This record gives sequence, C-alpha cells and structure tokens, in this order.
Amino acid sequence: MKKVGIAYHPLNARVPELIHKLSAILQAHSLEYWQCSAWDTAQLRRHFPNTDLIFTVGGDGTILRVAQALNGAPIPITGINLGQLGFLTEIQPNDGSEKLLALLAGKGWCDERAMLDAELQHNVNGKKETLYFNALNDVVMARGAIARIIEVTASVDGAVVDTYKADGALVASATGSTGYALAAGGPILNPKSADILLVPILPHVSLQHPLVLSSASVVTLKLSATSPATLSIDGHISIELFDGDSVTVRCGTKRTRFLRIAPPEYFYVSLSRKLKRTAV
Amino acid sequence: MKKVGIAYHPLNARVPELIHKLSAILQAHSLEYWQCSAWDTAQLRRHFPNTDLIFTVGGDGTILRVAQALNGAPIPITGINLGQLGFLTEIQPNDGSEKLLALLAGKGWCDERAMLDAELQHNVNGKKETLYFNALNDVVMARGAIARIIEVTASVDGAVVDTYKADGALVASATGSTGYALAAGGPILNPKSADILLVPILPHVSLQHPLVLSSASVVTLKLSATSPATLSIDGHISIELFDGDSVTVRCGTKRTRFLRIAPPEYFYVSLSRKLKRTAV
Amino acid sequence: MKKVGIAYHPLNARVPELIHKLSAILQAHSLEYWQCSAWDTAQLRRHFPNTDLIFTVGGDGTILRVAQALNGAPIPITGINLGQLGFLTEIQPNDGSEKLLALLAGKGWCDERAMLDAELQHNVNGKKETLYFNALNDVVMARGAIARIIEVTASVDGAVVDTYKADGALVASATGSTGYALAAGGPILNPKSADILLVPILPHVSLQHPLVLSSASVVTLKLSATSPATLSIDGHISIELFDGDSVTVRCGTKRTRFLRIAPPEYFYVSLSRKLKRTAV
Amino acid sequence: MKKVGIAYHPLNARVPELIHKLSAILQAHSLEYWQCSAWDTAQLRRHFPNTDLIFTVGGDGTILRVAQALNGAPIPITGINLGQLGFLTEIQPNDGSEKLLALLAGKGWCDERAMLDAELQHNVNGKKETLYFNALNDVVMARGAIARIIEVTASVDGAVVDTYKADGALVASATGSTGYALAAGGPILNPKSADILLVPILPHVSLQHPLVLSSASVVTLKLSATSPATLSIDGHISIELFDGDSVTVRCGTKRTRFLRIAPPEYFYVSLSRKLKRTAV
Repeated sequence: MKKVGIAYHPLNARVPELIHKLSAILQAHSLEYWQCSAWDTAQLRRHFPNTDLIFTVGGDGTILRVAQALNGAPIPITGINLGQLGFLTEIQPNDGSEKLLALLAGKGWCDERAMLDAELQHNVNGKKETLYFNALNDVVMARGAIARIIEVTASVDGAVVDTYKADGALVASATGSTGYALAAGGPILNPKSADILLVPILPHVSLQHPLVLSSASVVTLKLSATSPATLSIDGHISIELFDGDSVTVRCGTKRTRFLRIAPPEYFYVSLSRKLKRTAV
Repeated sequence: MKKVGIAYHPLNARVPELIHKLSAILQAHSLEYWQCSAWDTAQLRRHFPNTDLIFTVGGDGTILRVAQALNGAPIPITGINLGQLGFLTEIQPNDGSEKLLALLAGKGWCDERAMLDAELQHNVNGKKETLYFNALNDVVMARGAIARIIEVTASVDGAVVDTYKADGALVASATGSTGYALAAGGPILNPKSADILLVPILPHVSLQHPLVLSSASVVTLKLSATSPATLSIDGHISIELFDGDSVTVRCGTKRTRFLRIAPPEYFYVSLSRKLKRTAV
Repeated sequence: MKKVGIAYHPLNARVPELIHKLSAILQAHSLEYWQCSAWDTAQLRRHFPNTDLIFTVGGDGTILRVAQALNGAPIPITGINLGQLGFLTEIQPNDGSEKLLALLAGKGWCDERAMLDAELQHNVNGKKETLYFNALNDVVMARGAIARIIEVTASVDGAVVDTYKADGALVASATGSTGYALAAGGPILNPKSADILLVPILPHVSLQHPLVLSSASVVTLKLSATSPATLSIDGHISIELFDGDSVTVRCGTKRTRFLRIAPPEYFYVSLSRKLKRTAV
Repeated sequence: MKKVGIAYHPLNARVPELIHKLSAILQAHSLEYWQCSAWDTAQLRRHFPNTDLIFTVGGDGTILRVAQALNGAPIPITGINLGQLGFLTEIQPNDGSEKLLALLAGKGWCDERAMLDAELQHNVNGKKETLYFNALNDVVMARGAIARIIEVTASVDGAVVDTYKADGALVASATGSTGYALAAGGPILNPKSADILLVPILPHVSLQHPLVLSSASVVTLKLSATSPATLSIDGHISIELFDGDSVTVRCGTKRTRFLRIAPPEYFYVSLSRKLKRTAV
C-alpha cells in the first residue's frame, strides 16, 4: 500500500478531528495520501489513479457518493462511521487505531458488493432521452413534492407483476437492503448476494410483499402520474419524472469493494446492535 | 328538501352520464338543483346558501374538496362513487335509483364526522406567518420532491413522543383513518370517534407504532430538514415547508355531515369487501 | 393510608431484595402491610379487605394477576418494575425511595383503566357451557399447539367483519394495546380510552388492519378449526377451545386503578424510551 | 410416460369428481395409474416405484405431504388446485383438459425446488435424541398451546443474530416463502433460489426484519421457554419441544420437482391475482 485517499462528509462537525488523527497515522507509516470532499465527484476522480485504499469519514451516504464516483473502479473503501447506523462502515470513531493499523498491515479481506445498472427512458420537453446510472444501494421511483398516490407498474422479465398504487416502488441491491428498502418493509439480504429486491413503498390496495428476484432478473418500473415524480439513485441523485417515464434495472457487472477487518459473520452479529428495538 | 347541489370531479369520464341520470330524478321530484366542479371552491360557496343536500359525483377526493369548501357549514353530503374504494361515498354508480329515492324521501340518517383544526407556524422569506386549516381526513408533514429522510418531532400535549427519522408523519381523524394513514400502517377508527391518530410514515429506527390519542389531545409536528418538505391537507392542499416549521393539530368543533341510507354497522360489513386481499 | 399490600412474582430472583427495602420504608411509616405471591389468587383475596394500596413487585404479568384477583375492587396498584418493559409499572427498582415516599404521603393520582368483559360459549363433552371472565389487557383466540391456520369469524355489533384465516384474533383494552396486541401490529391507545381494539394475528389473505371500536361495541369471535385452539385471558388464563366455540367481548363496568406519581403525559414521553429501536 | 399416480386430499368434497375426470383422460391415453390418499405416506411409498408423474388433487398441503413422502425421489408433481391460493399447484379445476393433455404429451418443463434439511436436538424424558427431517416449505419453532411469548435464539453460521422474544421463528425455503413465512411478514423469493429465509414470528422488542441468507448458511434456532413449544415441519409434522431444544436448518441436497406447463415468469404474473388486495 502506497497511496491512500480520505473522502469526507463536507458538513459533519467531527470530520476535521478524525482526519487529523487519520493523517497522523498515515504519515507515521510514510504513506502518501490525499483528502477530498466526497460531494466533489470531479475532484475525487482526479485523485483516484494509483490510489490503493479510500477511507471515508462520514456515514453510509458518504460511502455511496464515493462508490458512485468510483463507478466500479477496483479501489477498496473502508468507512469510518460518523453517521447513525453506518451499515457499510467498518470503524467506529472511538475504536482506537488497532483496526486501522491492521488494515494498513494488509490484514483485511475484500468484501465485494454487487451494483445495479439502471436505464431511464425519459421524456424531456417532448424529446425522448435515455440516461444510464449505476447504484450501489437503490433506484427509487416515488412521488414528487405533492403527497399524492402515484401508479408504478412493475414488471419482472417482461411480465407485469402489479401496478402499485403507492408512494412509489424501489429496486435495491443486497447492500441497499439495509437502506431505504428496510424502512419500506423489505428483508435484509446477505451482503454477498447478487439478488435484487423489488419493494413497493406504502402500497394502497396493491400487492404489498417485497420480492427477492434472481441476479439475472430485469425489473422495469413505469410511472403513471398526473404530477411530477422523482427518480432517486442511491439517495443523492434526483431526477424529475413525468407520466410514462420508465426505468429498467438489473444487476450490473460493476462492483464496489470494501476492505474489512471484522469477519463476514460480523454482519449478522451487528444487526441486532444496530437495528434492534431495545428497552433501556 | 327543496334545493340540491351536484358537485362533481371535473375530469372523470363517467361524470356526465351520472349527472344526467341524477338530474332526471331531481327534475321528476320538482327539486331545484345546481351543479358545479368540486375543484372550484369559490363557485361552490356561491351555490351553498339554502342548499339542503349535496350529491358528489367522483371519489373520496371529490368529497374532501366539498368538505373543505363547506368548512363546517351544516349541509349534508351524499357521495356517488366513481373512485376506487370510496370509503366516504354512499351510492355505487350501478345501484339503481332506490337509495336515491329513499334519501330524497327523507329516510336517511346523519353521519356526523369530526374534523381537525391545524395551525401552521411557517417561515416565509424570513418572516413568520401563521396559517389556519381544517381537514376532514388528515394533515401530513412529509419529505418534498427529494426522497430523503426528514426529522419530524412529534409532541402530544407538549410532551415530546419521538423525533421520527422518516418520510414524515401524519395526524388523521377517524374519517382519515381509511385514507393515507391506512397505507402508513394505521388502524381503522370507528367513524363516530373524535379521537385523533398520529402515524409516522416509513420510520427508520424510530418509534413506529401508530398512536390513537384522545379527542382532547393537541399534537405538534416540528420539521427538521435540510431540503424543503411538504404539508398536505386532505391530499389536495400542499404547502412547502422549511426547517423549523411546525404544525399544531387538534380535533376542532367543525363537523362534516353525510346523509346515509345504509345503517351504521354497514361500515364494518363493507370493510372486508373494500380492503380484503382476495384470491380470485 | 393504613394498610398496604405487597404482591410479588414468585420466581423473580430480585424480589426478596426489593421486598426487604419496601418493608423497611413501610415499617418506618408505621404502616400495616401484608405480602403474598401474585400467583396465589385465593390468598390475595383474603388479604384485600381494608387494604389501601397494593405494591406489585414484578413485571406487567404480576400486575395482570393482581387485577384479575381484584376483579374491579377499588384498591389501587403501584407497580415496581422487575420486568422488561413494564408499561403498567410506576417505579424502577433503582429509582430510590422518593417516589414511594411521595405516594405514601398522598401525592399520587388515580389512573383508572377500563376492563373487558368476556363471555365464552363453550362446548365441553357435548355440553354447552357459558363462562365469564374479565380482562385488564386482552382476550385472545388463537391456534393451539399445532402451528396451523385457524378461522376466526369476527363480528362487531352483530355484523360480520371478516373470517380471519390466521393464527387467531384478539380483543384488547387500551391498557392491553401495549401488550400482545402491539406485537400483532395494533396501535397504542390512550390509557384513558374505553375503546376496544380488534386485531387479527398473522392474517393470511384476510382483512389485516387493526380496528379501534367504540366503548359501546360488542365483538364476537367465533372459532372454526379442525384442531383445538386456545382462549387466553390476560396471558395467564388458558382454556382449550373447539370448533364452534365463541367468545363475546365488550367494555365492562369494572375498572383497575393505578396510583401514579408521574403525570399523565409521561405515558407518551416514556414510550420511545421503552419501544424505540435504538442504535448503540 | 407409462405410469401416473394420483395423490389426493382425503376429505375435500370435490376430490371424487376430479379424480373421475382425470382417470378418464389417463385411460383414454392407455396410461397405467394408481390413486392414494396423500395422508397415507406408507401406502404412497409403495406406489412410487416406476411412477413417471404424480398428480395431486387438493391444495398446497396435499403437495407438501407428497413431497415429504418422496423425500427427494425424482418423480415430478403436478398439482390440481382445490385449495385457496394453491401457490404450488399448476392446474385449476375448471381449466379444461388442455394443460393436462399438453403435460401428458411431454410439453412440460421441470421446476426443481430446493428443500431444507433440519436436525433437531431434543430432550425426551431426560434423554438426548437427534431427529432428522427434510422440508419443502418451512421449519417453524413456535409457542405451544399457551399463547405466551417464548425466546428463540437464532444463529447464522454460529453467530448469534438475536434472541427473539416472540411467538417463535421460522426458517423457510424459497418455496416456503409463499406459505406461513408470508403471513409472518417475509418476502417472496424467486422459486429457483436456494437461499434460505429466517423470519421471526410476532417479535416483541426484538430484531424484526426477515433475513434472506445464502444457500450455504446454517441456521440454528434454540428454544428458551417455561412451557412446551412446538416444532412444525411443512405444517403437518408437529413435535413438542422443551426448554433447551434446538434445531439446525440448512439447504439440503434433495429436491422436489414439479412438472409445469405455464412458463416460469407466470409465477410473478399470478402473484397479484393470488395475493393482491382487491376492491370489488
């Protein structure tokens, strides 16, 4: 390991302190490093070449932005958690430096996560447009600013499953199953799975069960709505949608890599700590 | 009964046919009547004086607009259902004229429903503003166009219940318990109840249970969000909200009245017909 | 206040220590007191006459047994919590003696809770039998030992709501809304409410929404099942049921009284502490 | 195809009529056939040798019993549906003979489903006993006749996920995801998946999210309860469990095969027909 990056949440108050600690350790190991706001995609990408590992300082949202910028480039991420749940992060701010030192000493393992490919068929001012996205977590088609039911027709491999009358519907990866999909009632998938998850959001008199589809499935969500709706990619890219727009999602070939020190089964051990309702 | 109104959904294709049938019956009974789009509040209000009964032709949304225009004025409504579920309507389009004739002959009963009073404390361009609303169904504080979690601090009688990290939270009347509140996981209240319902919308690691509060309770929802959110009144009035805005909701003294022919227990009998998941 | 009772959980390991502390305080105040296992209904009832207050030492289950023994007798209960959530209890074991002293000094308020009356129509060896129960929390009709779907036909005021194909169905009071009803997806009712709650348990292709009925409603649950089912009263009285048995539940005239020191709004404040899913 | 079996529900009133129709078709094709109650496992097994296809006449329960009797033997099943949802069946009773004729003409495809292996560590009269089961649908550890919360400690690959305070917990296959797991809030898995599903049943202040585990995962459920609990295999084998008993479940190597005529995507198309809540 020669060159390390630090991508941080630009507004979190604890960031400077953590970067300070982290830099000291990297310097002590004579490692070259860069630091950059995770919100500045263009700048991040200029830093990527020859980087061996990226530390993120923030929550899952910070990691999602770096994953978006990486766009499948094989640089692993290790998250230092300043967020609430931090499902994707590896290190707690009060963890001491042991885990960090172990990672720098090459003791980690590579946790490779499937990503989604999304293709949006979009009407902009009467002109058809096709946009392509990749997502680590999820692709969400949901109502716009007005809290009104929209209709989303969901198809799997060309077969119509249902027209959800709902706040919307989402397609999530295994990684995204602990994100917005979870609040919408979806199950938690095994992190190694390439299956994709289709979940309606607050359905009203519609099929309401989350579906776990195979990694080879192709899901299409088609919008029917009188007011504008929103397409959200990983919670940080938003596109206004109109009646008739549709998005097709499948498991892509790109991957996001995490360098981890805790063993794989720790994912399950930490779930109850993170999610369990607990009495004080 | 001397004067009858017809308030209709302006876009539903079956409206003209139903108004035609209804008019014929009203003329045969030598009743004076008016007709008006339920979307045209100002015009509706000019028609109200001396009206004895309003027929709505549309779904629950059409009734909600008329109730909003009535603002507690004691003219009863009878809904003819062109919507999907039509919880508030009384007559199906294919019902024949028996029910209508019975109602015109004075055989109905008055189903009086509690309404909510809402007081919005709002920051507009740095100026504080207070707006007042009444709602038959619900007052919803929810995310705006961007599908991102907001924080809504809910208080009951001044005591903080929780800060919901969620899509939002809503306060509903008994009547509203079969509306958006139902999709959000709320229970169905007895139509005669003046209790109020507090329901978080897709809560994430927050208290997630719907609360049924007494008719004397005062609920405050306070917004904490970096992007704009939306306040929705009965699903058809939308106001953009910003960080720090709050709305206080209580059971008001105004009522909406329905003239019905089916007996009160029919509410429960029809629930499973309307909501049950049924296998074909 | 002259005579105080202590009713305790007979198996909880921390009971002796707490009774010891409590006795010392009662003796210091020259109060007459008795102590008795809350599981020994007959003995409890011999102690009740002239008792001014009963302290329970245990969880909500301990309180439910004392309430059952009281059967509406107007002796108030104050619960010392050794259980998990302790929704009905008032004092935590580590609270110190302040609250206790305030209660003994007459500073508490009476929290009066509605109870349910249940009438079971039961076939025992081909003979019809009618049994009467009262419940502070709930009346549950559910599958027996074999994990198989049963059918429970629920009627409200004589009108059939649905035939639940489910693990069962329950009727709960406001007090019971924080018990088993909560796990089954029911809302939390205001403690002062006399409304009754009807909740299906794991319904399969049936009406699944909890219903909040008025205090005047009469609910009947009728069993259709090929294997035996179980009627549970407040979680501690169990009766084997057979095909065709039915139970009729309404809000009774009996009440259970709690002597409390925390103000009424504390109920809502403590909910999130007790139920919220919290991240560490 | 030379020899065909008919395994039927012994109590369903429509069975004789359907067997009559089916027999006529088989005779017209000069096919040898046998018929047997699906409840009579021993007799079924005597019939199996040299059988090319088994028609079941009943619901999903009838198929589960045949699958149990087959114990992985490679004879395909085609279900004729007399049940309610009939997720596993292929032919509706009113379908006419086209599908049947197509299947007999060799036009079907083989829908191969993963099964679960379960190993029960059981205390019987103070003696340890190990019992082995296979399940097509699910392995359920749940409360016994008394409606009281039990504790089930769930581990995945040796790591404790949570101790559910609940009615119980279940492990289901993809096939079982449309059975009891669905009522408990689980997602619907792709029929081809060998993943396994872990779902708590009515959890109370416990981790409540269903988990979709990999096909290589090993799940252990360990019981902690003061009253007897029940282990249910595919809903028709019941074993009384006691405190300390545990069951270990994994995806086995045995398969159940269905001969189908509708294409694979029909699974998704038929979901909304079967499960959707529909308004009349």
